[in-house]
Order: sequence, then C-alpha cells, then structure tokens
Amino acid sequence: MSDQNPIFIPGPTNIPDRLRLAMQVQTRDHRAPDFVETFAPVLEGTKKVFGTRDGRVITFPASGTGGWEAAVTNTLSPGDKVLVARYGMFSHRWIDLCQRQGLDVQVVDCAWGDGAPADQFESILSADTHHNIKAVLVAHNETATGVKSDIDAVRKAVDAASHPALMFVDCVSSLASMEFRMDEWGVDIAVSGSQKGFMLATGMAILGVSQKALAVMDSAKLPRTFFDFRDMMNANASGGFPYTPPLQLIYGMNESLNMLFEEGLDNVYARHFRLAEGVRRAISAWELSLVATSPELYSDTVSAIYVPDWFDSNALTDHAFNAYGVSFGIGLGQMNGKAFRIGHLGSLTDVMVLSGLATIEMAMADLEYPITLGSGVAAAQDYYRKSQGTALKTAA
Amino acid sequence: MSDQNPIFIPGPTNIPDRLRLAMQVQTRDHRAPDFVETFAPVLEGTKKVFGTRDGRVITFPASGTGGWEAAVTNTLSPGDKVLVARYGMFSHRWIDLCQRQGLDVQVVDCAWGDGAPADQFESILSADTHHNIKAVLVAHNETATGVKSDIDAVRKAVDAASHPALMFVDCVSSLASMEFRMDEWGVDIAVSGSQKGFMLATGMAILGVSQKALAVMDSAKLPRTFFDFRDMMNANASGGFPYTPPLQLIYGMNESLNMLFEEGLDNVYARHFRLAEGVRRAISAWELSLVATSPELYSDTVSAIYVPDWFDSNALTDHAFNAYGVSFGIGLGQMNGKAFRIGHLGSLTDVMVLSGLATIEMAMADLEYPITLGSGVAAAQDYYRKSQGTALKTAA
Amino acid sequence: MSDQNPIFIPGPTNIPDRLRLAMQVQTRDHRAPDFVETFAPVLEGTKKVFGTRDGRVITFPASGTGGWEAAVTNTLSPGDKVLVARYGMFSHRWIDLCQRQGLDVQVVDCAWGDGAPADQFESILSADTHHNIKAVLVAHNETATGVKSDIDAVRKAVDAASHPALMFVDCVSSLASMEFRMDEWGVDIAVSGSQKGFMLATGMAILGVSQKALAVMDSAKLPRTFFDFRDMMNANASGGFPYTPPLQLIYGMNESLNMLFEEGLDNVYARHFRLAEGVRRAISAWELSLVATSPELYSDTVSAIYVPDWFDSNALTDHAFNAYGVSFGIGLGQMNGKAFRIGHLGSLTDVMVLSGLATIEMAMADLEYPITLGSGVAAAQDYYRKSQGTALKTAA
Amino acid sequence: MSDQNPIFIPGPTNIPDRLRLAMQVQTRDHRAPDFVETFAPVLEGTKKVFGTRDGRVITFPASGTGGWEAAVTNTLSPGDKVLVARYGMFSHRWIDLCQRQGLDVQVVDCAWGDGAPADQFESILSADTHHNIKAVLVAHNETATGVKSDIDAVRKAVDAASHPALMFVDCVSSLASMEFRMDEWGVDIAVSGSQKGFMLATGMAILGVSQKALAVMDSAKLPRTFFDFRDMMNANASGGFPYTPPLQLIYGMNESLNMLFEEGLDNVYARHFRLAEGVRRAISAWELSLVATSPELYSDTVSAIYVPDWFDSNALTDHAFNAYGVSFGIGLGQMNGKAFRIGHLGSLTDVMVLSGLATIEMAMADLEYPITLGSGVAAAQDYYRKSQGTALKTAA
Repeated sequence: MSDQNPIFIPGPTNIPDRLRLAMQVQTRDHRAPDFVETFAPVLEGTKKVFGTRDGRVITFPASGTGGWEAAVTNTLSPGDKVLVARYGMFSHRWIDLCQRQGLDVQVVDCAWGDGAPADQFESILSADTHHNIKAVLVAHNETATGVKSDIDAVRKAVDAASHPALMFVDCVSSLASMEFRMDEWGVDIAVSGSQKGFMLATGMAILGVSQKALAVMDSAKLPRTFFDFRDMMNANASGGFPYTPPLQLIYGMNESLNMLFEEGLDNVYARHFRLAEGVRRAISAWELSLVATSPELYSDTVSAIYVPDWFDSNALTDHAFNAYGVSFGIGLGQMNGKAFRIGHLGSLTDVMVLSGLATIEMAMADLEYPITLGSGVAAAQDYYRKSQGTALKTAA
Repeated sequence: MSDQNPIFIPGPTNIPDRLRLAMQVQTRDHRAPDFVETFAPVLEGTKKVFGTRDGRVITFPASGTGGWEAAVTNTLSPGDKVLVARYGMFSHRWIDLCQRQGLDVQVVDCAWGDGAPADQFESILSADTHHNIKAVLVAHNETATGVKSDIDAVRKAVDAASHPALMFVDCVSSLASMEFRMDEWGVDIAVSGSQKGFMLATGMAILGVSQKALAVMDSAKLPRTFFDFRDMMNANASGGFPYTPPLQLIYGMNESLNMLFEEGLDNVYARHFRLAEGVRRAISAWELSLVATSPELYSDTVSAIYVPDWFDSNALTDHAFNAYGVSFGIGLGQMNGKAFRIGHLGSLTDVMVLSGLATIEMAMADLEYPITLGSGVAAAQDYYRKSQGTALKTAA
Repeated sequence: MSDQNPIFIPGPTNIPDRLRLAMQVQTRDHRAPDFVETFAPVLEGTKKVFGTRDGRVITFPASGTGGWEAAVTNTLSPGDKVLVARYGMFSHRWIDLCQRQGLDVQVVDCAWGDGAPADQFESILSADTHHNIKAVLVAHNETATGVKSDIDAVRKAVDAASHPALMFVDCVSSLASMEFRMDEWGVDIAVSGSQKGFMLATGMAILGVSQKALAVMDSAKLPRTFFDFRDMMNANASGGFPYTPPLQLIYGMNESLNMLFEEGLDNVYARHFRLAEGVRRAISAWELSLVATSPELYSDTVSAIYVPDWFDSNALTDHAFNAYGVSFGIGLGQMNGKAFRIGHLGSLTDVMVLSGLATIEMAMADLEYPITLGSGVAAAQDYYRKSQGTALKTAA
Repeated sequence: MSDQNPIFIPGPTNIPDRLRLAMQVQTRDHRAPDFVETFAPVLEGTKKVFGTRDGRVITFPASGTGGWEAAVTNTLSPGDKVLVARYGMFSHRWIDLCQRQGLDVQVVDCAWGDGAPADQFESILSADTHHNIKAVLVAHNETATGVKSDIDAVRKAVDAASHPALMFVDCVSSLASMEFRMDEWGVDIAVSGSQKGFMLATGMAILGVSQKALAVMDSAKLPRTFFDFRDMMNANASGGFPYTPPLQLIYGMNESLNMLFEEGLDNVYARHFRLAEGVRRAISAWELSLVATSPELYSDTVSAIYVPDWFDSNALTDHAFNAYGVSFGIGLGQMNGKAFRIGHLGSLTDVMVLSGLATIEMAMADLEYPITLGSGVAAAQDYYRKSQGTALKTAA
C-alpha cells in the first residue's frame, strides 16, 4: 500500500510531517534538564486542550484503554457502584473493564446511534438516595457509532439529582478535534490518547483529572501501580517520571500542542466540523444514513454509515483497501457488516477527504451498489468551496 | 500548507516514504567500501531504466539543465552545428543553452502542442550532405506542453537520411515513468534527473551515454570540468567520484531502483498511463482541450490544458494553491495564462489523482468557470475503477 | 546538548539509524494485512531472543513496570505469597508493586552489590512445605547495581526444594544484550522492554510467558484489563490487538530483530561483554570499585561504580552533563551520591565507549578527583585492540 | 559500519539531527510563496557568514568544484591570464580547471604545507604592468594539507602592486568554521559548499560575489549556462530558480543558518579552534608533525599529519576503518601514504573528537607504530577541560 494515500480510520490518524519529525528525537537522558523543560510545559499546555484550569493532566505510556483503567483504579474501590450507558462498542468495553475490576456496574442500554441518556441518568441518580453510585461514566464521542454526547446535559442531570458521583468522560476520539470544556462541564476525569486529535503515534494515555477526583485517590482501594496517579504526580512534580518515559511521544506532544495553538483550538474545531459536514453532504447525496440518530449527535471526527440490508459493509471496506489501498473503519460489534465508518479527524484537509469520498464511491460501484459516481464528491465539493471562509487553511 | 496534500506539478514529485527514509543516510566516507558497493550497482541498475546494454550511465550532482550542458560539452566543439526543434519551453531552453555554448543551432520551429518533426528532420538531414550537423536534439517529453515525441521516428528519419549525427534526447520528465528504449531507438545521450520518475529530491543529473557518443569525447573541444565525462568515468571505474558525491541521492537512487524493479518497469509505465488516462477523461468531461494536438502525443506524466480566452489559467493555479493548498503547474512561456498543467508522475495513486481533479473543479467553480462539480472526478472514477486490473496496486 | 554525543545511561539506549528509520512508519490500518504480516513474525522472532520454544511472547504498549504488573496480575490472586530478594532499586520497586497489588511478599534483603541468593531461596522454599509461595521473583540484571544474577542457580534452588512456585524474572536491562535461556532456566515469565537491548524508543513491555504460567491465568484473581494476557492472546491469534497497537514500535521491533539476527545473538552478547570488559579495565585503572561484589556478578550492560566517601557521585554526573553534554547514570536509592553508573548496552561501539571514558576522566579531573587523564582510556584501548577478533564489527 | 561512530574526514561532516530533520522536507512547489519566503532569507543570512554586505550570494545545485567553475566562467574569457599558487591537491585541481577552461594559468609552485605566497604574488603582480593577470586564485583552507592561508595578506599584496585583478578564494572547507571576512579582505568571489561548515548533505555550491566581480559578468566570454550568474540572479530576484532548485538543501541551509547564528559565529570559530587545538596537542604527544609548516598556518578544520617514512598512512586509515569503523582522511596527491588527515569541522564536540583520537591510537598500536595508548587522548583531555570556558557547549 502506498504510504501516501490518506487513511480514513477513526484513529490513529495520518501523522503530519511536523510531528513525524518531532518524534524522531534521539534518546536523551530523561533525568536531564532538557527533558524536564519540555515535559512540564506539555502538561500545562494540555490543560488548555481539556479546558481545565483547576485540574491536572496525567499521562501514562499506554493506550486509551490504559487511561480508562487509570481513571477507575485511582478513584474507586472493589464493589463500588458505577453508572454507565452502553450505546456503542467503546462504551461497551468500558463497562467490561469496570466489571473486571470488580465494580458493580449499572448499565443503561441504549440504542446504538443514541447518545448519553441524561434524562435516565437523572432519574437513576435521583433514586440513588444513599449515593451508592460513585461515578457516572460517559463516552463523549462513541467512535463505533459516530455519536457525540452532550456532556453538559449529563452534568446538569447529575446536578439536578444533587448527586455527588464523580463524572468520568471518554474523550479519546474527540479531544483536540471537538470542543471539550472540562471545568465548565464538571468533568472529573477525562480520558484521551496521543493517536487521535493530537495526531501522534499510539502510546500515551492522556488524562485530565479534577481536584475532586484527586481528593478520593488515597481512599480508592483498587490495586494499581503502573497507573497510580500518586507516583506519577510525585515524579512529575520535579519534572520526572516514575519509570522510563515515552520520550519521543512527549517531544511529539510538545510539537502537537504548538500546532494546535498556532491554528487556534477554535479553528481546529471549525475545521473538523467543516470536514465532517462535507462528508455528511456526500452521505446524503448517496442516500445513505448515519448511525447517529439526530443532527445534534453527529460526530465531527467519525461518521458511521449504514448500508442496506442486502449489502455487506465489510465487503466494501475490504474492497476499498484491496483495490484502492485506502483504509476505512469497519462496523464494530452489532454494526459489523451493517455499517462502515469514515474517520475524518486529525491532520486532514478537505482535499484529502475528497479522495476518500471518491474512493468509497468507486468501491461501491465495483460492488454493484447503485451509486452515481461523483455524486457524493460533488456534494462535498459544493460545501467545501462555499465554506472556505469558515476555516483556516493552515491545517498542518 | 499541509505536507499531506499531494502536489500536481510535473516534478519534482511527491517523494514516497521509502525514498525519504533512504535519503536520510548519515554522512559516510565516500572513499570507503560501503559507498563503492552501493554506487556501482546504482549505475548498473539505471541502465535498465534507460533501456541500454551497451551504453554507460553517468551522473552529476546537478539538475537536468546541468545534464544538458554535460551532453553538449562532452561531445561538441565551438561552432558545431546542431539541429533542434522548438515546441515548448524546455526545448526552447535547450536551444538557448546550445547557443550560449557557441554552437550553430538550426532551429525548426513547430507549434507548441506538436512533437518532434521527424519528417522535417529527415529533409534537413538529407540536405546536409556535408554532414555539418553534428547532433540532433529532441525532447522526448516536453514538460511545458505535455507532449511525448516519437523518438523511434526521429531515429528512423536520421537513418533514412543516412546521416551520422548524434541523437541527444531530453527524457527528464519521462524516464522511469514512460517507456524508454535507448539502445533500440539509437539514442546517443539521454538526459534525465533524480526528481521526476525516480521520485527523489532534486540534485542529480542522470545521463545514459552510448559508445558512439563516448567515442567523440576526446575530440570535443567545448570546455568543461565539473561536467567532464572523462573525470567522472575514471573515478567511477574504481567506485568513486572526482569530487564529493551527493551521497544521500545515491543511496536514494539505490532504493528508487529497488522500488521500480519491484513494481516492474512495465507496470510502472502502465500505472502512469492509467493515471494519465483518468486525467484525460476528466478533461474531456470538463470540455477542455489538451495542448497536445493528437492522442499519440499525449504524455503520461503531465497534461497541459488550455483554458478559454476569457479565463486566466494563472488565476486558477493561484487560487487552487491559496484556497486549497494544492499546487498545479502553470503555463510556461507562450502558454502562460492560457494553459495550466497537471503533473501525474512518480509516486502517485489513482486516489491521489482524484483529489487533484476534485480540487481543480472547486477552484474553477470558485472563479465562476462554468463547470459541473464532480463531473471530471466521475469520468476519472469510472475509468479508474474499470481499469483496475490493468495496473498493479503497489505503487509505493 | 548535541544529539551526537552518545549517552551512557543504562537505557533507554542510543537508537541506531536503522531503528529510527523503521519507527518512522506512517500510520497504517492496524486491522489490515500489512500489520498482521509484520506483527506475527515479530512475536515469533522475539521468542528466539528469550530462548523459548514452548513459551509465548506477549507485548503491551507500556514500560517495563507495566510488564511487571502484567506478570503478577495474570497469575496471582490477592493474598498470594511471593518470594523476592531485594538487592537494588529495581528489585525494591518490584517488591513495592507486589505489595500494592495485595500480595503477601516475603522479602530477602541482601547487600546491594550481591545477586539473587539461590541458597536462601532454597532454604525458604524447602521450608514452605504447604507451597504457600506461589512465585519467586528475580531480577536477572539489577540495573541499579550492575549485578547479573545466576538465574540457572535460582532454578536449581527451586527444583532442589521440589517447589512448584512460578519463577518470574526481570530481564528488562539484560535481554538482547546478555544471554537469556528462558526454557533452559525454567523461567515462567520474563519481563523486558523495547528501550534497552532492542535499542528502540520506550513504550513496549515485552514478556516471555511459559505454558505453566499460562495455565494459571484463568484462576488468577488479581484484577486486570489493559494488561490481561487473555485479551491480548485472543487478539494476537488473528494478528490483531485488543486496542490500538503501538504501530511504530512494532515495526521497530521487526527491524530490531533483523539487526540482532544479522549480527547473531552470540555476537551481540560477545560485543556487550567486550564493551563492558573495557569499561571494567578503565575502572581498575582508576582504582575505583564496582558495586557488584564479584566477577561472576558483573553485568555486561551497566557498571555501577563506587566513588570514595569524600566525593559526590551526583556532582560528577551533573558536571559531565553540564560541562561536556554527556549523560551517565546516577546512583539510585541508597547508592545516591555514592556511586555512578555507566550504561554500555544496545547500539554501541568500542569507539563510542572510549568517548564516555574520556569524558568521565575529564569530569573527575575538573572536580579535583585525583585521576591520571587517559589512564582508563588507555586500559580500555589496550583491551579493545587486543580483543578485536572476539567480536563482530557490524554492531549497527 | 555503525552510523553512530563519528566520521573524521574533512567533509562532508557529521550531519546533526536538526539538519537531518530540516532536509526531510517533502516536495513543495518551488514556485509557491513558502519556498520564496524561505529562500530569500537564506541568501541574505549566508551573506553574514561570508562577511559581506555589498556582495551577493549565489548558489548552484552542484559541488564545490562546480562553484569554482562558476567563479571562473562568469568573469573570465578564453585566454585570460590568472595567477594561482599550488600548495595542495585542491589548489592543484583548481589550476587544472582553469587550464581546461582555456585560461592562461601562471602557477606559483610552493611546498605542500606552505600557504599562499603573498610576497611572490606581489612581485608577480607588480611586474604585470599591463595588467594581463585578470584574477588571483587562492585556497583559504587547503584541505589536503590542513593549511590556512592569510587572505588579508594576499589582498594587501594585490593592493601593494596596485593591481586591478579580481581575487577568488576557495573557502569550501573553511567557511562557517573559521573566520571569513569577504568585504574586509576584498574577496571578489568566495566559493564554498553545503557539506562542510554548513553541516548539510553535499549538493549545493555557495558563492559570495562582489560587485566588482558582477561588473565583469557581461563581458566574460567563457561559455556557461547551468552556472550562469545572470540567469540565477534574475530568477532569484523574484525568489525563484532558473531550473529546479535543490529544495531539501535550501530548507537545510535555512536551519543551518539558524544553528550557526544561535551559537554565534564567533563561538562557532572558537569551538573549531578549541577542537583543533586539542587534536594538535594529541599530535604533539604522539611526536608526530603536521604538514602545515608553521602555527599561523594551522587549519582549524582539518589536520594533515605526517607519518615516518617506514610507515604507510594508508594502512593506518584503512585499518582504522576496517577494525574500528572510523573514517579518517587519507593523504592526497604527493602526500598519499605519507600523511593522514583528521577532519574536525562541522557539528562536532570535544567528546566526539576524543573518540577519534582514541581510535587512531589503537590503530597505530595495532600496526606496531610505537605509541603510548592514551597519550594523545590525555593531552587533548587536558586541553579540553582547561579550555571549557572558552567555548559554548551548544555545539549542536
């Protein structure tokens, strides 16, 4: 496969040259000043991306899954009750993780395509008068369905129930691509990773942690060492790491933040909206439907698209890869074979997106799906050219 | 500008990752065995690309223009007569170079859009009974007009005139992208460069030189030192260079040849034809015309496209760059403002080409050129998907 | 600091160019065949480095500490008893990890500078007639003291006691640099990482796991998700990962194995011995002592060196860094200020080592330590030049 | 060979990471603003390195030899007389180039090891009352002998003779490493390249040209096209190139200038002096002699060192390479076998130099040259540690 065709999986993303270069840093002594002087500002800068002033940023050399584990084990004890809604593969996996860690998980099953059920949460939390529920877990952007949930609404539901539960948010595939307001939304732990909006290689879990979450750290009884906030924070306090740090990713993070701030976070979000909206126009032109059930749920980083019953979405993604060397996301879990996904996040331009749309059209035609070649492309082109003024061109 | 939008200038080309990596070689001693063992096979392998068994490959750390100068100065003497046809900016520049070197240049002016005038050459050479004409100079692929000339026909014209003139061919923008048969076509010097079909950085002139050309080297009186074949060949004989070699490019050439041979030269040519044909389908769909006047002249590495009188092609290429961050070739010389060019050579895929076509459509629409968005894209998609079997997918 | 002075910390190591290039791979779809075809052979090849036929290789995107956690949590249950000797900072940390995970840790405290106390282990295990001890944990190479323990002797001690305990070995700073014979020594879990003998960036824990260890996986009750062997093995079975894989490191591992096998593992070990022995000759010439108490304990990857009481080893390493831009290892834990460390592992040559020895001599002289400049260098030079034939030159 | 042993050839130099990264730039449109905005400041910044305000900087994609040819062909006409002293291989080659270009070359033969004979030049120029001599050619730093000539003295000689000849200076291996004052010394054309003090890959000839030299451009009759100042200057005026520019090298130059100016040119020169002086101390300790005949001629970028009659310097450099993987410069021309060279220019540290000295000591001992191992290293260590304050540590 050509290294030069963009990928359209919903992360890891295409890595822009600036970040590929930044990650090429030769080994340096991580106990020496140069590292310290790089790492501390990275933690500080990342706070802006989370939208927190009061919280802390804590990173681990792990994937987002490791970040989830860190969130749970540093704040909860065996048998603690947590409330989670399942509306996609990633919320499903988070539930599984909680169960394996010995938590008592109250699951609210929603249709895949729906977002976090703030109303149900409010009812449940209101009924939980003994405050047995210790935490509410929400996926901001469910990568499997392309659904963005309203975190602010969940916050308001918790508050309406006057419930003290912590609120944990999975923003792995939304942070640095879609607006995130940790402090404003009262998020206690937000979990993300290096390989999505930060446009880096996989390998760093990135968490924003509120003071409220930090306050329960010492009483949390779930065992943890590698993911212990306390060791990490103690070491970070003097610019260090409790074990060998992922040097290349930290230098990469430094440059990623430079890129994000140079473009401006608002411009980054506007660009992602614009790219996503072009994809949605194409989907409409193809007369296909998003999995997300209503416009306010549409994700700007990934679109999950239903195919008709008689058509196999896996055949489509396989063929796009085999015939044209372009990767799209497959349908996960119950959507396998029924939906495919177009990732449109990170270092991406309208021009690159159009190549993805053109590719999927060819693949559909090859598989005798009744499509007018160029129809989706034209819809996206029309939108992109008319919306130029709304986004900066300095994507990467 | 994003480093990730492909460029569509007719060279230098998008550099594939394999070659970017290969050119990252740290400085090594160019008098040491490792260099010698790399360089000698590079020269040998390049012969296959030229299509020569008997000839020699000679390289200089220079651009293609330097290659032209090397061709002329190593074989001709002041006042020598050469025959050249002018049918584009690059043939024009070669004429200029010959004049500056003190040669007596007989120019055959052709319409830009035509190819090498084999018939006229035959007449002229037949009339040159004293064999004053020492060399016939032909651009195989005129980059300014997107015209591929029939070198075999020129050879036959020279032979029909029973004329002993040397035949020099500029294949800068065709070699390693379109078929080239140096021995079969009786080419005496073929001049190319690193930054086109070889997909490398600019900086190496690459020449194929016949035994017949080498035979006149000692009697050629044009002064040269940097470009002297003899010094280079003497040094090459023991694996060395008469001065500091462009190490990174030579290691890059080594890997470029690996890529070309892995794909197979015939597959490389077929891929270029396929990519170019898709572009031509789009141009037809847009109801625009190529500068090249007939199908057998169509270049597979670059298409030069006329715009109507009332439209400024420079505005189009400027706008595509400024609004979408995509570079196309401008019209050169007498075509400036009247034509633009789409380069489609080197490490390129159908998917990447479609993004270029989609971009130029948006740019045309933005400038109120009456175009149906997606029309050219659809024509190319249709062709690409139906012609998949004709080319390998392992472009890069 | 110059990126070109080598570092002499005991890992992460200087990354050779081949591996820096290999890790530059652009994002690819980790569900696509190219990844699968790379990853499976990496797992297989790594088995050779561990010295196992029957065991499995399991990797996690984490540091070595994460590898320790994975070893423990996949095989043990809360309250299980483990036997560990403490003879350096890293064995100390592993003990700490076990305690945090709720294990009952029987610690054998040894002098720092000693190795694993096989005899004491045998007594303890023999006395444990109810087989309460579920695992024996040993650091093969204690990075803090430069001590290599005799794992075979520990195996024989366990066997002599006819004890069924599992044996876990930390080989983070020995694997791929010093001989390791997992099957022969009866190691049940061997824990290593990407940033030492494999010469890569930090970010991948690499474990060798015996069938005996795998057999207790399902009954082990310590909670784990991110580090669960079962998910990883299930996903690996079809060439995948249970979450986003560290793509760049896996491609890097692939090339690292190529390098190791091209040099030959035995040659790799011989090179490390030779480099280390030169360092030891220098230490003798300086009339300083190793922390390791006897020659059979000398590590070939790191030398920890005592300084006299009146001298501060931290001042030495600080000065070497500030004045000459060269990093050495500081003394850890109880050795802080009393010893410094020279790392000599990974992609290193005799020539590079000599520059480190010359640097530390200058730094000592600057701090008025009574040293004859060049004395250690000369001792190492003498050894290196006489021992040339014993090791390959193709280090990197 | 390890990519990590430094090389000690007198150029091309070890390329520091910052410049390796800078040269990795993907192909961009060289007619687009981004290139223009990079290139113009590069030309302006390079003027500072030459030490010229009034002059112009002109670059060609070629080696230093190409730079010589450009100097000569743009200012002289066939049969013009030039005055050159021969005191090494590179001055010899420049003479050869002038002769091939049809110039009338008056050669002053000096001992190899001497510098430019200002006194003889003054006599010859004074005697040239008809001003037949059009140019005086001088190598500032004769790379073959490690001799730095006094350009100011040559200027004064020309002035004392009241002679209007142009003065051309080869500063290929001195510029950006040793002080160069083009305007002050009245240099008319200074010729350098990318691969020495600029620490880049080979491939760009870099010239400083005075207004006086530019004034004769139009009357100069030597043929040139590729190297024509006028085309280059015309194209440069609008930020462009008359042919495809060596993009990667120009972006590399940009970063090289950043590095040089960040360190400060005076600090760069002081660092080179300090590194060179350490090497000279080692040579004294070895009881060997420099080719350069007196201290004011000592080059700070390369030391050429005589070996005794009974010893073959080629055997020494071969052995150092084969046994230790380290490259030194061989003796060139009449010094072949009689002298070897240590290059100490570019991105180099004292620590790296010590490894070179240690290597050559081992190689000498291996070949039974009577040397005390560590003796040269100790002499250099002593000097380096005492002279620390005299140079910045931020070499690279």
